Amino acid sequence: HHNVPPLSPVSENTQPNSRKRVRSASILQSYNVGATNVTLQEHTVGRDQRADVLGKHEGFRGCTIWFTGLSGAGKTTVSFALEKALTQMGIPCYGLDGDNVRHGLCQNLGFSKEDRTENIRRVAEVSKLFADAGMVTLSSFISPFRCDRDSAREIHKTSGLPFFEVYVDAPLEVCESRDPKDLYKKARKGQVQGMTGIDSVYEPPAAADLVLHSGKDSKEDCIKAVIDFLVEKGVIPEKALSSLSSSPVRQLFVAPSSRLSLERELREVKHEIELDIVELQWLQVLSEGWASPLYGFMRERQYLQSLHFGQLLDLKRKCLFPGEVDSNEEDDDHSQFNMDGPINQSVPIVLTITKEKKESLTTDGCVAPVISLSYGGKRVAILRRGEIFEHRRTERAARQFGSIDERHPGVAQVLHSGEFCVGGDIEVVDRITYGDGLDGVRYTPIELRRILAEKEADAVFVFQLRNPIHNGHALLMRETRAKLLEKYRNPILLLHPLGGWTKDDDVPLDVRIRQHKAVIEEGLLGADWTVLSIFPSPMMYAGPTEVQWHARARLAAGVHTYIVGRDPAGIADPASESGEALYEVEHGAKVLSMAPGLSHLNVIPFRVAAYDKKACEMAMFDSSRKEDFEFISGTAMRGLAREGLTPPNGFMAEKAWTILADYYREKNNQ
Amino acid sequence: HHNVPPLSPVSENTQPNSRKRVRSASILQSYNVGATNVTLQEHTVGRDQRADVLGKHEGFRGCTIWFTGLSGAGKTTVSFALEKALTQMGIPCYGLDGDNVRHGLCQNLGFSKEDRTENIRRVAEVSKLFADAGMVTLSSFISPFRCDRDSAREIHKTSGLPFFEVYVDAPLEVCESRDPKDLYKKARKGQVQGMTGIDSVYEPPAAADLVLHSGKDSKEDCIKAVIDFLVEKGVIPEKALSSLSSSPVRQLFVAPSSRLSLERELREVKHEIELDIVELQWLQVLSEGWASPLYGFMRERQYLQSLHFGQLLDLKRKCLFPGEVDSNEEDDDHSQFNMDGPINQSVPIVLTITKEKKESLTTDGCVAPVISLSYGGKRVAILRRGEIFEHRRTERAARQFGSIDERHPGVAQVLHSGEFCVGGDIEVVDRITYGDGLDGVRYTPIELRRILAEKEADAVFVFQLRNPIHNGHALLMRETRAKLLEKYRNPILLLHPLGGWTKDDDVPLDVRIRQHKAVIEEGLLGADWTVLSIFPSPMMYAGPTEVQWHARARLAAGVHTYIVGRDPAGIADPASESGEALYEVEHGAKVLSMAPGLSHLNVIPFRVAAYDKKACEMAMFDSSRKEDFEFISGTAMRGLAREGLTPPNGFMAEKAWTILADYYREKNNQ
Repeated sequence: HHNVPPLSPVSENTQPNSRKRVRSASILQSYNVGATNVTLQEHTVGRDQRADVLGKHEGFRGCTIWFTGLSGAGKTTVSFALEKALTQMGIPCYGLDGDNVRHGLCQNLGFSKEDRTENIRRVAEVSKLFADAGMVTLSSFISPFRCDRDSAREIHKTSGLPFFEVYVDAPLEVCESRDPKDLYKKARKGQVQGMTGIDSVYEPPAAADLVLHSGKDSKEDCIKAVIDFLVEKGVIPEKALSSLSSSPVRQLFVAPSSRLSLERELREVKHEIELDIVELQWLQVLSEGWASPLYGFMRERQYLQSLHFGQLLDLKRKCLFPGEVDSNEEDDDHSQFNMDGPINQSVPIVLTITKEKKESLTTDGCVAPVISLSYGGKRVAILRRGEIFEHRRTERAARQFGSIDERHPGVAQVLHSGEFCVGGDIEVVDRITYGDGLDGVRYTPIELRRILAEKEADAVFVFQLRNPIHNGHALLMRETRAKLLEKYRNPILLLHPLGGWTKDDDVPLDVRIRQHKAVIEEGLLGADWTVLSIFPSPMMYAGPTEVQWHARARLAAGVHTYIVGRDPAGIADPASESGEALYEVEHGAKVLSMAPGLSHLNVIPFRVAAYDKKACEMAMFDSSRKEDFEFISGTAMRGLAREGLTPPNGFMAEKAWTILADYYREKNNQ
Repeated sequence: HHNVPPLSPVSENTQPNSRKRVRSASILQSYNVGATNVTLQEHTVGRDQRADVLGKHEGFRGCTIWFTGLSGAGKTTVSFALEKALTQMGIPCYGLDGDNVRHGLCQNLGFSKEDRTENIRRVAEVSKLFADAGMVTLSSFISPFRCDRDSAREIHKTSGLPFFEVYVDAPLEVCESRDPKDLYKKARKGQVQGMTGIDSVYEPPAAADLVLHSGKDSKEDCIKAVIDFLVEKGVIPEKALSSLSSSPVRQLFVAPSSRLSLERELREVKHEIELDIVELQWLQVLSEGWASPLYGFMRERQYLQSLHFGQLLDLKRKCLFPGEVDSNEEDDDHSQFNMDGPINQSVPIVLTITKEKKESLTTDGCVAPVISLSYGGKRVAILRRGEIFEHRRTERAARQFGSIDERHPGVAQVLHSGEFCVGGDIEVVDRITYGDGLDGVRYTPIELRRILAEKEADAVFVFQLRNPIHNGHALLMRETRAKLLEKYRNPILLLHPLGGWTKDDDVPLDVRIRQHKAVIEEGLLGADWTVLSIFPSPMMYAGPTEVQWHARARLAAGVHTYIVGRDPAGIADPASESGEALYEVEHGAKVLSMAPGLSHLNVIPFRVAAYDKKACEMAMFDSSRKEDFEFISGTAMRGLAREGLTPPNGFMAEKAWTILADYYREKNNQ
């Protein structure tokens, strides 16, 4: 359903140009809000229109939740917690209770039966107004008399507004033992008259919409019960629940209870795709939730979104042609996943197959409903509801890399892969491991969140690298931490070397991990504030496109600060004889800082460090005395190592250098 | 400022897969909302947190606007209109007045002095609660006594909430002559007692925050005055105003009052860029607002946003490196332009220059502050605050076209253009015209809105084409109109042939326009429901990337329905010998239907029409009797024309065919 766009003429001269706009008498003038524009209809704003303005979810959800019960039963506690939770979910709400009413609206009322009735009547009328305004109104009042509560319900009913009576039911003994305001004590002593439960009656609801056993159940359970109830009643949309858990991570491991049946199913599946190592690494990335909320290898829908917009716009399965309706859409529970804003996904994650493989997976134009994915002869995952679509490799390389040069190792991988892609929902049997002695430093995003929570991190900054660490890097990480310490108590560094496929001349992962450990052992990075872990993604060398992936994937682990270097994920232009960079060296950081879906990420630039010959240490490059600095490139470093020379004192921690030098020497000897 | 992300562990098994999730006793369970996740702090929700949930603008804006004045002065009229306008701007608000209070909250009050005071006291207390909840509360009550209004103000002051007293001041005679509820009449007859102004006093405010002269000023002026006042007080953010005018169009023509000074300035400007015809066409596109809110040729910031994300994410000038601060940002009034959602901009609109030109425009690394743009020796526009950045042509072609094949005419244009781009703010002296006899059918978006409004269109559908119209097209347009007529009263067709540069073998614009006119004259398209106009954009043949531009540009003219064809803006793959399409033929429509910034556009697929040999007319292709249909390709059509043959009866309106046949014959003879 589409609304008609207003067809009124609009501002012809919202002059954007350099001359300062002279503020006219009416600010409105500059918007040319003529009589044709400001809508001046007489009719009032309806609930539907109001609903569009309020909260983060569609639809009018004005209603009143009326908490009744003895003093001390927990009405206000539950109501406050609920207000908090609703706000977190983006649902507009407002709490009314004795505190904001007895001193204001009802200050001229006492505690006689008549005054109590008038008190409840007024509060009920105000609740109705708030509900009418589209708010979830949380009214917490002892409201001891049944007839008063029934009147409150009636007032709402007349206005067509939902009213839910929630009985917060705790035994008098419990309430009296809590006695938060010492009212029971005073009543027992006769200092307070008309205390409900002592010398005034409480009439429990005959048919409450919900009863909370706040005497025996915990506060948490009570709140969960209310939230469940409100979901059931449609006041809270189910989607909103996910915002209660922070940026959820979607893992693709089979549930423990279904593991056996999945293994059984896998043994019987007729169709199989054999993964190569890079595909296995992507499967690991997906299964551990680094690309959350992706639920498998991309379908055409996600593939086009990623290639054209660098993001996931939704999680639906089918790539629909306009006018086409997906008959299975209701079954599409992925759309249930909360997608409040755009989710950055600049790189496609696809599983490619050849034309021949496509034929073997297809019967009468239908893709096999289940396909096993195997690696090294072992069936590691299942792909369901498979969908086969064209890879269009050259176009993909052009859009992802901005280049179709086959000498680029990332482009080459794409151009040499299959002509088709299989998208589908993935379930992985076991966590993917490599038995290379490094599995112990391969943490999933959820494990990292736990580790970081145990360390009581209140800020997490990540350092992405695929090269050995020199003292310049370490300096930068220390400086970043110092900067974060101005605002945070305990910033933790996630030292997160990329562990997937890299081009041949990069230093192998095991050497790098030993080198990284040495840097920590030598104290250049504090062991107490550093978590070393391997990032399972393969490398692509896709520059500005890839740096977004590197940053976005780490969000899953709870990272909030990303250090971006010069020419991140860049590579030399294979067409350039002088070895010029393929990507403009600042584009990576610039694009990263503007990328949709990353606006909450704190991006810190990697300032250039170089060897300060005067101070004999790595230092931030100071262009005012450039003659004092020496840039030691990777090539230069490799040269030194090969020839058994040592780099200048202070360039790299000694132990770390030894590891690297040994590696290059050995490589040289081969 | 960045918030710390919560570091709690999250749902490990939000199983997305095919087996239906068993709904557990608690829906919440599936979100693993453990004690660590649902925040159960005791403290209440503060105004800041509330502000995040309410409305479309940042910040807490709870306050009370108190309208006081005689009955009939216009309090409710102004308040209702304001409520409407605030809602339209996305500002949460709620109106309180006699209607929703006298029958509820204050039903037990009469019109004695005491009761009136109590009435106002209660309403003031409720207003305070609404303001505290973050709403702009509009309270309209005669509230005749100064002391009552002062109490209302005091109640708000105590709670730290803004309170604005607005005196709706109309003379008694005026109010009495309006007498909407016949109350004055009754009072004069003695049927009503205590009528304010008749037998009860009205005490005008001594120092109202705002006075509306609703006796002499129009309702519109009164509302404008209130809106201006609220902008001044910060209740309405200035940005929100733009949503009062519907999707504003930003034109880049100089204001008439500044025309002379601009011409003078242009005569003296030292630096000049000579535009080619395609660049002139882009200048026209920009100046008329088709690419609104772009304010000139793209700067690096917009260029990268367009290339990487297919959209404009903001309108800031400088492409900042992380950590860098733009010292001129306050001067950056472009950020004032309302950008509520993403603005689709899949194609870059840049002005390119050579390296030599770059040198001539630069002094000591600074770009000339003003540059004249000229065409055919005439200075047509000024470019201010110029910024020069690398074009990176191959990368651009790769990202925009998914191809770098020089045989592709669009790619070739990019590869043969300048190595650098000049971005900057543009002001155009005169509307760009061509003197080719077709200027009369070149309407700007604002002109089209006017024309469409005059025709009282309540829906506008557009047909984009760069080829002659055959009866199949016409059939489709008639069918689309019939479909829209189910929902709309008067859907109008914008017949909008592309008028900018096209490749050599496309039919020239003047021939096409004559042919289009003939189709209308012959009644195949209703003259009463068709508006013929030329779309000034050059063609790019960039397939899925370009179709978004074609759709998005038309939004400026008020279009809400876009008809998309098979392989829109597509072209044969120059590398394919069999003439296969460069782009997957369905990608265009699919990408268009998912594109950010176009979600309000109604996309209608172009169903395939073919010549029905049985019915002797163009008809929608029916695959169940495909033998009856003949597809007449553009090539076939050209062949017929060249050889002086006529196409099958019913293929094209006769007059239209004659025009086309004449063109081809003439071309053939040359």
